[in-house]
Amino acid sequence: MYKANIYVTLKEGVLDPQGDAVRKSLQVLNYQGVKQVRIGKFIEVWLETEDLATAQRELEEMSDKMLANPVIENYRVEMVEVQGK
Amino acid sequence: MYKANIYVTLKEGVLDPQGDAVRKSLQVLNYQGVKQVRIGKFIEVWLETEDLATAQRELEEMSDKMLANPVIENYRVEMVEVQGK
Repeated sequence: MYKANIYVTLKEGVLDPQGDAVRKSLQVLNYQGVKQVRIGKFIEVWLETEDLATAQRELEEMSDKMLANPVIENYRVEMVEVQGK
Repeated sequence: MYKANIYVTLKEGVLDPQGDAVRKSLQVLNYQGVKQVRIGKFIEVWLETEDLATAQRELEEMSDKMLANPVIENYRVEMVEVQGK
């Protein structure tokens, strides 16, 4: 069993209305120091495959096809746990 | 200027319908090895404060008040960049 963390972030230059809304709300709450907020996804996947190489390849594919939108988002796959085998 | 990454995840035992939907879709796409998917938030905050201790305290407060829902979510604040001062 493998576990991966996948970090999905908006590409630079892509507007982030959700992040902007949070920044404004934080400033209203008197956190004037907040200059920018960007909101992305943190996805944890538990996966059973033959070997680590297969797990990594499949996770990259899944990210490209479904977990991220490669047109506007970047992603980073990080293997965090390898149990058994 | 400080930069922090904040990882917001659902607490163990809290159902994650979004993660379940993604897991099912991945299995339909023939990734049978996927056992579980949990979806959280990855929040980047750029902040100007007097010192690192203030930045850390404020980020914890913001997470508690706004960025996470402490009833059902855990969060982790990670300082990643410290420029100037």
